[in-house]
Amino acid sequence: MKVKLTLSYDGTSYAGYQVQPNGITIQQKLEEALFSLYKIEITTVASGRTDAGVHALGQVVSFEAPPTVPAEKIYLAINSFLPPDIRATKSECVDDDFNARYSAKKKTYEYNLYFGEVENPILERFAVMISSKVDLEKMKECAKIFIGEHDFKCFCSSGSSVKTTVRKVYDIELNKNGENLKISVTGNGFLYNMVRILVGTLVKVGEGDLEISSVEKMLQSGDRNLGGKTFPAKGLTLKSVEY
Amino acid sequence: MKVKLTLSYDGTSYAGYQVQPNGITIQQKLEEALFSLYKIEITTVASGRTDAGVHALGQVVSFEAPPTVPAEKIYLAINSFLPPDIRATKSECVDDDFNARYSAKKKTYEYNLYFGEVENPILERFAVMISSKVDLEKMKECAKIFIGEHDFKCFCSSGSSVKTTVRKVYDIELNKNGENLKISVTGNGFLYNMVRILVGTLVKVGEGDLEISSVEKMLQSGDRNLGGKTFPAKGLTLKSVEY
Repeated sequence: MKVKLTLSYDGTSYAGYQVQPNGITIQQKLEEALFSLYKIEITTVASGRTDAGVHALGQVVSFEAPPTVPAEKIYLAINSFLPPDIRATKSECVDDDFNARYSAKKKTYEYNLYFGEVENPILERFAVMISSKVDLEKMKECAKIFIGEHDFKCFCSSGSSVKTTVRKVYDIELNKNGENLKISVTGNGFLYNMVRILVGTLVKVGEGDLEISSVEKMLQSGDRNLGGKTFPAKGLTLKSVEY
Repeated sequence: MKVKLTLSYDGTSYAGYQVQPNGITIQQKLEEALFSLYKIEITTVASGRTDAGVHALGQVVSFEAPPTVPAEKIYLAINSFLPPDIRATKSECVDDDFNARYSAKKKTYEYNLYFGEVENPILERFAVMISSKVDLEKMKECAKIFIGEHDFKCFCSSGSSVKTTVRKVYDIELNKNGENLKISVTGNGFLYNMVRILVGTLVKVGEGDLEISSVEKMLQSGDRNLGGKTFPAKGLTLKSVEY
């Protein structure tokens, strides 16, 4: 049967989602756990790879599994074989043609920032400190520019090979709660480092070091040099994937 | 000059605050950093020791230091010598008779819980999951019992040697925000594991496994067997100390 499994993880100790020669990955840990459970090798497909240090609260994975464990119990069974920083939170039987990557319609990423002068050790693992003053209203205004279908080639780190750099952003929300600022971005897909560059650009605008009109030019010209820096992986969490 | 220094730390990797033969402690790291800064040995006094795995956002430490670094800059200077999971957040010059331990008037601890069926790797480092249903109103009602001056000998783990087990609790607040439940306790001082046992007792009451009247009896009889279990260290944070 085809299984859809939802995963949460603290990405701090991992070299990203996808199996790779150097470093331990989430996919490797998951496939090892599936081997322990089923005693056969199972290949998994994820909604997308998350980079080294990026976290997830709703990564979705699909795979073909023997019917020995009821689909809705797999997440509980697999957790006995996963390390504590990776947890399966849900499992269900889906149509045979379901593919966690190709069936995905929308993804939401969250980026967590906090304001401070000195790093807060309790927030640092999953968020990034901003010590400058930012104009939140200006950031919100700038965020609107990204909504819609655009060529995001200037919001993409080199090293990725994709057919098209056109992506559709459905929504960007900035929510400030005390010293914390959460930036949520929902889109039909994201380029390499796209959310982290969007966040860097929004912060640069908030700090007054970049005009909103320049960001509009970036979207047209594709000149990466204009934008903000790529913000660190640890602030980023894959929140959910819609199908 | 006498210095008052405020510290935040992620206690996960430490064997508690106080220097001890086995394991690395916060105090050790702080005194090593002070040695690197001043090139002389400096002995520190903390508001109280926090146990292994307990965190802090407002631990206060006092020490005598040479006037080579302006008092209000010490926290910035010392951070260059501290590991990233310990941060000094404030420093000031205080009266010579200030003592972080004996001058303390009130302390506030926060205990972080969250509701769920499967552990959330992003919350797990600083909070403890409850998978049962709890009656929050009953917990709030029970919390009121602790307010005031009481003999908390039944809310204290064995192994501590204190003159008196009488403590005054000024306030207990339970704040639920989505899946998160924060329990804040302010008192003039706390016995060994006292907050973690109070939390365990409140949860047991919330789960319906302990009557509020039995908790009242505990406060009178001192029979520890009646109470809830000692909740894990990782959910506990020393929030602030008042002088």
